Amino acid sequence: MAVLKPTVAIVGLGQMGGSLAAALTKRRLARVIGIARRSETVRRASRMGIVTAATTELEAVSEADVVVLAAPVRTNLSLIPRVLPLLRDGALLTDLGSTKTPFISAVRACKPSVAVVAGHPMAGGDLAGLDGCDPDLYQGRPWILIPAVANGRKVWKTLDRLVKGVGALPIWKDDSARHDLAVARISHIPYLLAYALCEQPRHETRIAGNSFRDATRVALSDVDMVLDFLLTNGGNIARAAKEVEVRLRRLVRLAKSGDEAGLRRFMIASRAFRQIVPEPK
Amino acid sequence: MAVLKPTVAIVGLGQMGGSLAAALTKRRLARVIGIARRSETVRRASRMGIVTAATTELEAVSEADVVVLAAPVRTNLSLIPRVLPLLRDGALLTDLGSTKTPFISAVRACKPSVAVVAGHPMAGGDLAGLDGCDPDLYQGRPWILIPAVANGRKVWKTLDRLVKGVGALPIWKDDSARHDLAVARISHIPYLLAYALCEQPRHETRIAGNSFRDATRVALSDVDMVLDFLLTNGGNIARAAKEVEVRLRRLVRLAKSGDEAGLRRFMIASRAFRQIVPEPK
Repeated sequence: MAVLKPTVAIVGLGQMGGSLAAALTKRRLARVIGIARRSETVRRASRMGIVTAATTELEAVSEADVVVLAAPVRTNLSLIPRVLPLLRDGALLTDLGSTKTPFISAVRACKPSVAVVAGHPMAGGDLAGLDGCDPDLYQGRPWILIPAVANGRKVWKTLDRLVKGVGALPIWKDDSARHDLAVARISHIPYLLAYALCEQPRHETRIAGNSFRDATRVALSDVDMVLDFLLTNGGNIARAAKEVEVRLRRLVRLAKSGDEAGLRRFMIASRAFRQIVPEPK
Repeated sequence: MAVLKPTVAIVGLGQMGGSLAAALTKRRLARVIGIARRSETVRRASRMGIVTAATTELEAVSEADVVVLAAPVRTNLSLIPRVLPLLRDGALLTDLGSTKTPFISAVRACKPSVAVVAGHPMAGGDLAGLDGCDPDLYQGRPWILIPAVANGRKVWKTLDRLVKGVGALPIWKDDSARHDLAVARISHIPYLLAYALCEQPRHETRIAGNSFRDATRVALSDVDMVLDFLLTNGGNIARAAKEVEVRLRRLVRLAKSGDEAGLRRFMIASRAFRQIVPEPK
């Protein structure tokens, strides 16, 4: 076990990366190097006091024990071959993206010598960039971790400790294909449905109640972030959308035909399922 | 303008009726007669101090200036022919149901001599019965009002005043068919989608984030209440579901084919729409 706090480089200071930087800094868990494309973001992160140092130079990842890719999924994919050769021995690379198979494939294509663990914290909100920075964003949230390569095992526990340190619940998995399908069903389809619902006669918005607001809230999310996970999970999304469509049609048929018993059974089962969905702590 | 506070009878003391009773009593807007089927509910409402008097006797509506049917939609429909003959001259009958055409048809079939205005407050939550009683439930919420018959116009303003009195925003309309289609699109479809989403592998619930929780929250609602509005709005629901399905398919096609520009355009338009949806005050 190391005596010194680890150095964590975070590439991308949007809501996810900025909040991680803030959480690590505030809880004194690591020295944090913030890396952003725009010097305006670098200055802002420094002013906010959420980083130990910040820069626009990607090369700074070479000083870190743990490097976190925190840009949208496809930007992360393009960063992998640039970042891996810069890492020091014994370092660990991870990310915060919502789809894991493309990340792991891109990593493996580079045959890395360091540890690489794909990461997916189930957290986020509708504020993009450092406006959405919240040191408690990860509090009580599941954080999925899937090793991308077998090497570097002994530094995995550093990552596990950091995830727990920011208040999240690490869930180690080994099957990224299963993860991406699960995420399509549990997370990506709600986004698609929100977009699908958001085209109504404008004057009807004034009768919108909580059911509409809740169902469409994620349509307020940062477009670039969502675009990236939709475009890197198309196959699973198509499968999950089909499942929802089948169930929606069944519900409509029950309502239209006046099948009260059948509709009630369906609703009671759905309600029971919803009741076991954990609320964040 | 009357000198005395009006007497309001509320038939059904669930979340909607109970909250209305509490709002009227707390703000001293009316004398409130609470009418419930179960004597346990009558006792509880009295203990909570949300009514002036409470009873299981439907006949008590004859003492009221304004009678509010606050049971699930189909129960309200069955109450109409029983309640109308009991009303005193100059009284007004209204309801709180989510579908308006069936209510208005049932009223007209009775050829009432009193004023009847169909009502639909856009409010509610996932707690059923008096557990969900909240004197501020209607605060800042739209409350649609559609006259069912032309007579009794001069007491409409009493209703308008009470609606404003509990903090809601009266929106007078005249077309119940249009209302029911709008509500299918804006309110009922989010319920169906929530039920449709609530069948996933159980172990995946632990990765559920806010996108899933928000999209499925209404699946926690009282089953009897929802069942009633789904079963009395089947045709509109089928039409609205088809619209969402078409848009969902378009989104899936864009994601699967990697049409970034098309997907971005769709998302940006949806996001702009969502941004104009008013938040409750």
